[in-house]
Amino acid sequence: MAEIRPDGDFEARVRESFDRQKAMETIGARLTSVTPGIVEIEMDYAEALTQQHGFLHAGVISSALDSACGYAAYSLMPVDAAVLTIEFKVNLLAPGRGERFLFRGEVTKPGRTIIVADGRGYGFDADGNAKLVATMTATIMVVSGREGLKG
Amino acid sequence: MAEIRPDGDFEARVRESFDRQKAMETIGARLTSVTPGIVEIEMDYAEALTQQHGFLHAGVISSALDSACGYAAYSLMPVDAAVLTIEFKVNLLAPGRGERFLFRGEVTKPGRTIIVADGRGYGFDADGNAKLVATMTATIMVVSGREGLKG
Amino acid sequence: MAEIRPDGDFEARVRESFDRQKAMETIGARLTSVTPGIVEIEMDYAEALTQQHGFLHAGVISSALDSACGYAAYSLMPVDAAVLTIEFKVNLLAPGRGERFLFRGEVTKPGRTIIVADGRGYGFDADGNAKLVATMTATIMVVSGREGLKG
Amino acid sequence: MAEIRPDGDFEARVRESFDRQKAMETIGARLTSVTPGIVEIEMDYAEALTQQHGFLHAGVISSALDSACGYAAYSLMPVDAAVLTIEFKVNLLAPGRGERFLFRGEVTKPGRTIIVADGRGYGFDADGNAKLVATMTATIMVVSGREGLKG
Repeated sequence: MAEIRPDGDFEARVRESFDRQKAMETIGARLTSVTPGIVEIEMDYAEALTQQHGFLHAGVISSALDSACGYAAYSLMPVDAAVLTIEFKVNLLAPGRGERFLFRGEVTKPGRTIIVADGRGYGFDADGNAKLVATMTATIMVVSGREGLKG
Repeated sequence: MAEIRPDGDFEARVRESFDRQKAMETIGARLTSVTPGIVEIEMDYAEALTQQHGFLHAGVISSALDSACGYAAYSLMPVDAAVLTIEFKVNLLAPGRGERFLFRGEVTKPGRTIIVADGRGYGFDADGNAKLVATMTATIMVVSGREGLKG
Repeated sequence: MAEIRPDGDFEARVRESFDRQKAMETIGARLTSVTPGIVEIEMDYAEALTQQHGFLHAGVISSALDSACGYAAYSLMPVDAAVLTIEFKVNLLAPGRGERFLFRGEVTKPGRTIIVADGRGYGFDADGNAKLVATMTATIMVVSGREGLKG
Repeated sequence: MAEIRPDGDFEARVRESFDRQKAMETIGARLTSVTPGIVEIEMDYAEALTQQHGFLHAGVISSALDSACGYAAYSLMPVDAAVLTIEFKVNLLAPGRGERFLFRGEVTKPGRTIIVADGRGYGFDADGNAKLVATMTATIMVVSGREGLKG
């Protein structure tokens, strides 16, 4: 995607918008890497985020993957655009087990109106061994000129 | 689905498992209705669960819909089975705006190994008017005889 | 969806576009019902359309469901718009068994740019008993003012 | 996936099953590569497979991607198993334009009961330049011991 030139200070825009996502703070998610079209989010395991077997809840995994994919898309948008997820699909490949988790979103297909991004979620055990726990495909909309909607 | 006879006290089983989902407590979700193949979850708006525009985060909507669909499926499973979501797709039809939210999961296709459930999420304004904000299709697995995995 | 008023002669527009889909002719699909936001397509079983067990191939089921959902959306679009499927998800609930098949697409959420439609596919045995074989959720784009793209 | 050892002559099994898919013959699809966990299918453009704008129909793209993903999964299954697609999602990233097409399915997560595969479809112009036109994620079931169901 060498032809894509991010508009303005894309990292600052992504970080500013991410910081407004209270849901990310609630689940303890941190924005650890922002490059054009690729965004990484990390978080630690917490009992408050589990499903009935003690694993990370699929919805929490989806929350982090959705934000990673959405901001990967947003990093390539014009400065005055807002980002909106239209839909996503998540495959839960393994139980959400781990001491910490990494979620990477990457733009597969940029576009003026529609951007498609794919995400992968990894769980890390105490020894730092990674396991792929989930994949996402997200369809994201570039929203322009809508009053009061930014970031 | 008249032919489906829930095994044992399905409501008690569903409630017991739901209560173990700490993520539901964290987002303030309550199990408000459990019938064979249909489960409803309700929650109030909270700033701690928002995305960057102040709407309910798509991941939070997914969390509640996933639990609603999963427990709709679980209500039809044998007493010794555990429930596991394999994958789901969410369409975000409107911003997650509302004072409170209702998430209904319903089994579309029961099965011995695979159950497919569909979910709908509604936002209610201060006057009680409902708006459809999201739909989900979830593929759920009936897990039997796996050591230490129940509910 | 009483508030949606189809633009112009929506049925003629849908039929004209459907007739240009050579793939529908190839699989023997017929447009049997066109109402605002709901479209039905029917087809007979044919050995030429099977997968390895002799059932209707999942891709053929998807072809008919995609057209049903796409034209359900198109029936609500302005006269100068073109219809484009962005993505869809199909759940194969039962083997594609039957003498003939019915595919119904219905708009769940109309919109100016994005329309979401849901579809259901049924197989009928020799006695006319129907069985739900597949469901689809499709995200469809309203394409306006793109040179040379109509219908 | 070095730890996966295909059972028996996986390529012969895949080819034998593919040859029974009449739908693949109908759309002119050829099985051009079979390695453990990765399968490629190629086909030429044909007017009989188009949608209303003259591009390859999304359903035809899905048919080829479904078979590519399904056989990628099947190549890793035990010799007595049958392959069944439970569900898939397709993103149509660009119009199905090209002189010929390549569809690659690859196993992302092997498993005893459930296998997840991802697929990519490419269109080639007259000069041989490839363009990514679609991606798929498919959830596939390993069916064992079901009377009369093989391949």
